[in-house]
Amino acid sequence: MHYLDNSATTPLCQEAITAMSNAMARFGNPSSLHALGAEALMALDNARQNISAFLGCEAKELYFTSCGSEANNTALFGAARAMKRRGKRIITTAIEHHSVLNAAKALEAEGFEVIYLKPNSEGVITAQAVADALTEDTILVSVMYVNNETGAVMPIPEIAAAIKSSGCGALFHTDCVQAFGKLPFTVKGLGADLVSVSGHKIHGPKGVGALFVKNGCRILPFIYGGGQEKGLRSGTEPTLLIEGFSAAVSALPELQGEFNRIDTLRKKCVNGLSALKGVTVNSGEGALPYIINLSVAGIRSEVMLHWLESKGIYVSSGSACAKGESSHVLQAQGVSRQSADSAVRISMSHFTAEEDIDALIDAVGQGIDKLVRRR
Amino acid sequence: MHYLDNSATTPLCQEAITAMSNAMARFGNPSSLHALGAEALMALDNARQNISAFLGCEAKELYFTSCGSEANNTALFGAARAMKRRGKRIITTAIEHHSVLNAAKALEAEGFEVIYLKPNSEGVITAQAVADALTEDTILVSVMYVNNETGAVMPIPEIAAAIKSSGCGALFHTDCVQAFGKLPFTVKGLGADLVSVSGHKIHGPKGVGALFVKNGCRILPFIYGGGQEKGLRSGTEPTLLIEGFSAAVSALPELQGEFNRIDTLRKKCVNGLSALKGVTVNSGEGALPYIINLSVAGIRSEVMLHWLESKGIYVSSGSACAKGESSHVLQAQGVSRQSADSAVRISMSHFTAEEDIDALIDAVGQGIDKLVRRR
Repeated sequence: MHYLDNSATTPLCQEAITAMSNAMARFGNPSSLHALGAEALMALDNARQNISAFLGCEAKELYFTSCGSEANNTALFGAARAMKRRGKRIITTAIEHHSVLNAAKALEAEGFEVIYLKPNSEGVITAQAVADALTEDTILVSVMYVNNETGAVMPIPEIAAAIKSSGCGALFHTDCVQAFGKLPFTVKGLGADLVSVSGHKIHGPKGVGALFVKNGCRILPFIYGGGQEKGLRSGTEPTLLIEGFSAAVSALPELQGEFNRIDTLRKKCVNGLSALKGVTVNSGEGALPYIINLSVAGIRSEVMLHWLESKGIYVSSGSACAKGESSHVLQAQGVSRQSADSAVRISMSHFTAEEDIDALIDAVGQGIDKLVRRR
Repeated sequence: MHYLDNSATTPLCQEAITAMSNAMARFGNPSSLHALGAEALMALDNARQNISAFLGCEAKELYFTSCGSEANNTALFGAARAMKRRGKRIITTAIEHHSVLNAAKALEAEGFEVIYLKPNSEGVITAQAVADALTEDTILVSVMYVNNETGAVMPIPEIAAAIKSSGCGALFHTDCVQAFGKLPFTVKGLGADLVSVSGHKIHGPKGVGALFVKNGCRILPFIYGGGQEKGLRSGTEPTLLIEGFSAAVSALPELQGEFNRIDTLRKKCVNGLSALKGVTVNSGEGALPYIINLSVAGIRSEVMLHWLESKGIYVSSGSACAKGESSHVLQAQGVSRQSADSAVRISMSHFTAEEDIDALIDAVGQGIDKLVRRR
């Protein structure tokens, strides 16, 4: 099997499996006042310490959520509703993940005004584009770090600086689900107030994510209840998952070295595929090397996807969450509808080896020969 | 170890451990279009089928959430916001779990009017009390089935009938987290539109719950994003947890027989403890036998809790989620502050054996001798 759909989800790493298997016998509720509760609370605290250290923030700035989508929803709804007396304007982009886009649409229904910035032809939202859209009554800016379909990398520190120098006082959220564990960054370095990450894109379990909320940044709670996660996110903490998440973070390779290795694989992949008839690469030059989006003229995405699957190669037609709908991301960066309908996303992780890329190039080549001729 | 804090959380049953251990190697995203996605989707569908059959509803009426608190928040926010053009009045009770109470308070801040019904001295909200509070502009009623601190059982089918016969058209939500897997019920039999349940109170994993939404009942989404769970709850589904949840449901004993067994233990426990000096039982006669709330005069809850812990017996001072705050539930049913501050909750599950109760009675007796004398 050659699994090249790591931006959709990843297999659990052995470290996460071991941590979770070991944690299965510990079942205390971290809120319980007895020793079983204290044991669970300690496991929770250790995981929070570990992940926050990795992100370069304080443990008290990290809030566990049930997934990246919940982290994004918490940031958008929590910030917008907390700031609504100061203004109604929210700036985001046309290429965000649906958990940001659809939360923004729901905020529009609540009376907020939302601006959806378009990317340039490389799929990038520039800091200038954000700066130009900022007004005095802008309360929130949400721009993803790495786009999940194309790998386009947004200049987050520059955007943060533009917001700060504008003096508008808007909060800045960045969805780092695809960047986390791939780009070496710290939340302080990004300059954002709110940062979303997820477990299952880095070989951790599904069902857990986290939101960084900068000290002093106040947002409304998302799930109300017993006051867990300092009141921001109630609900008994799933310590099993959180320990698996923490173990997956600890198991990440040194990020810059791994980035370089993946960049070599990317070059090989792009060179190999570009040499094939009808292949266009949709990912820009500066894109995260882990994600390669391309179109094969004359072969619809699903057809190529199933062809590759028959060869044991797993890719996607875009975002898994969009379930085969035409890509809003590619359309926003000016890719034609026809080309978008032929898009294939290859996404790597630190589990990806050169032979996976070799198999992919071979199979796409065979697919073009077979599938285009057949039409 | 004698674990008698099952209303806070429960250990994983062997069936859930096995299901989850087996599921760790399957990692597909149910939204992915390839075979790994289809495999995950099938696991998800099977679990949904299994749990909905247990609840007596159709699979398409069951929506997975990340916990009971999220299910309760989804019901309250989703129903209130969907119905806000029809009216602003919400009826709930003073004895709900904080995930309902605090969601209701947040809805008040959004402009809804919330009525908090008080229980009678047995801790029960009567159908008459609900009927008396209903008005034409009531849009939502939320009454828990079993109270988590006292075990008080509310007459849910009668309340549903009262709402229906009033003709006000309010939606009816019931938090069944504590009743689920203990009282034999079907959602149809309850007559509710919205029913919340949770995995970790029935020896399933933490991090998963579900909300029944009756066919035709329309509520707003809670987490926006890729449109998972038919758009009501976006976010990649944690199939591992959902399979563990489903396995725990399958492993439940026949509920009526188990109810009778636990009722025998309850009688033994209540008789044994009532014979001790200064013990008052706060749970009413008709309470769920799995939960016994009592106060020991002159011994603060935490003192008794830690005494029992030193004997290997784990109980709680009330709701785990309230972390030692004085009980709003006991106060609402007229228990004095002093007595509430001495409250201890014993909560059983189908894992509880007679020897656990014997050990408890002995230890409470020794505690009264030792701790009261010491003062």
